[in-house]
Amino acid sequence: MTDDHATHVSLLGLGAMGSALAETLVKAGIRTTVWNRSAGKADALVARGATEAASAVEAVRAGPLVIVCLFDHDSVHEVLAPLADDLAGRTLVNLTTTKPEQARQLAAWAAEAGITYLDGGIMAVPSMIGQPGASILYSGSQEAFRRHTALLDLWATSTYYGEDAGLASLYDFALLSAMYVMFAGFMHGAAMLAPAGVSAARFAEMAAPWLTAMTGELSGYAEVIDGGDYTVAGQQSLEFSNLGLFIEASTEQGVSPEPIAMVQRLIQRQLDAGHGTEGFARIIESIKHPTP
Amino acid sequence: MTDDHATHVSLLGLGAMGSALAETLVKAGIRTTVWNRSAGKADALVARGATEAASAVEAVRAGPLVIVCLFDHDSVHEVLAPLADDLAGRTLVNLTTTKPEQARQLAAWAAEAGITYLDGGIMAVPSMIGQPGASILYSGSQEAFRRHTALLDLWATSTYYGEDAGLASLYDFALLSAMYVMFAGFMHGAAMLAPAGVSAARFAEMAAPWLTAMTGELSGYAEVIDGGDYTVAGQQSLEFSNLGLFIEASTEQGVSPEPIAMVQRLIQRQLDAGHGTEGFARIIESIKHPTP
Repeated sequence: MTDDHATHVSLLGLGAMGSALAETLVKAGIRTTVWNRSAGKADALVARGATEAASAVEAVRAGPLVIVCLFDHDSVHEVLAPLADDLAGRTLVNLTTTKPEQARQLAAWAAEAGITYLDGGIMAVPSMIGQPGASILYSGSQEAFRRHTALLDLWATSTYYGEDAGLASLYDFALLSAMYVMFAGFMHGAAMLAPAGVSAARFAEMAAPWLTAMTGELSGYAEVIDGGDYTVAGQQSLEFSNLGLFIEASTEQGVSPEPIAMVQRLIQRQLDAGHGTEGFARIIESIKHPTP
Repeated sequence: MTDDHATHVSLLGLGAMGSALAETLVKAGIRTTVWNRSAGKADALVARGATEAASAVEAVRAGPLVIVCLFDHDSVHEVLAPLADDLAGRTLVNLTTTKPEQARQLAAWAAEAGITYLDGGIMAVPSMIGQPGASILYSGSQEAFRRHTALLDLWATSTYYGEDAGLASLYDFALLSAMYVMFAGFMHGAAMLAPAGVSAARFAEMAAPWLTAMTGELSGYAEVIDGGDYTVAGQQSLEFSNLGLFIEASTEQGVSPEPIAMVQRLIQRQLDAGHGTEGFARIIESIKHPTP
């Protein structure tokens, strides 16, 4: 029971991401009705064949599948709460960036209102939508995911994580957090080298293959973490991983040691707790059990 | 004037890394004299054909090329300072982890004493020495690097960065910092997912290719940074990169938001300075110009 791309889609929210999503649908020949709170955002889409709804309720009533990509969770609540009766019996796909708990709240509200709910976390910037490399994570109604997979795949590689509507957001946040933290680490390295006249481009040429190679260590750390025994032989110990010298070198280069000092604090709490001879992977315990 | 691997090498310091370096030399049939401050570390190497020196001075006098891989900069100073006259006319390769400033101090001392000085930063754990993937960065005497490249290549891919003896350490610290920060970001993501019953192994399977793909963004950031104009169109703005939701979601998962909160502080300082509409790469300015 997969759709054949002939489904009529209603899309609410025409920011940069919503517009990219709508444009992909229109290009693929899907009948698309769009709506945005402020006027003027739909003109280019209408010129390409989309229909502009005069109100959110008109957009919702236009078809069986409603996509929302709004500013934040509060915007979703404001726009959709008055439309519960109109949404009943329809499928709602929420691609707005929301926290796991917010996605769960919305799923509970939808269940009560008789709305089929699917939550999505977009792992892409707007320009990547419809291109190779874009990925969208989904959770919530498996039935909705199965029925619309062909349509969802127009935007990105679609992956379903489970009935718990908060899962897509949780995976999304975990992956995006890791990315932002990696970017900050790169910026720190580039800042350290800048006073020596090394360009950021030169450092990027070195850092990209280096960091890529080092992602090869993640599965080993994961094995230790899942096993729960940080004393396993062959690991670099926390004592040996003391980053005091890195912090001093950063400061001596005149740059902020904040990124590496963050790692050192995670190490230090495990050293203070007497785990110095255990493996580096143990820093996850500093994150799992934050100090009160 | 490259050596033919027939050079006699003296190696001081038989910790895990020094032992791995010595073992690689002995295996390659290089005549190797080793010394360690505390006894008993040389036995396995001697069994394989190395010569153990009774003192540091005896080791230094054994040949023209002296490698040191000691605990830290202070150890190097303590061991070598009394041996300046013996080292004069010889080549000293320092593979001890030292700060850029410490490497420069040692190079200045060596220059005064008539010692040819090459500093190295090892991008590998001991088990990787002599294996594909290991890399050692060098700076200081280019003549020493050229003469001994074939020997240095027994340990790892050898790259020379310039006459400034501090450069190898600086590149080493910049790359290792970026790696440690990336690892902390991975640990944070794994910690966020753990309460949902997702194993670290499952997250590693997703995070390794994801982070690898995202290293593709580094050259773009570098171009903006080197250009110095953070207003270039097409970048994700700092306003849009506000990570408040990520911090809330971490806290709601019961885990420490420290890694992502570090990134948010870098963003916030630029937002506070009125740069919200500029690109994400601007966070490097928060690192380059730390608050007093």
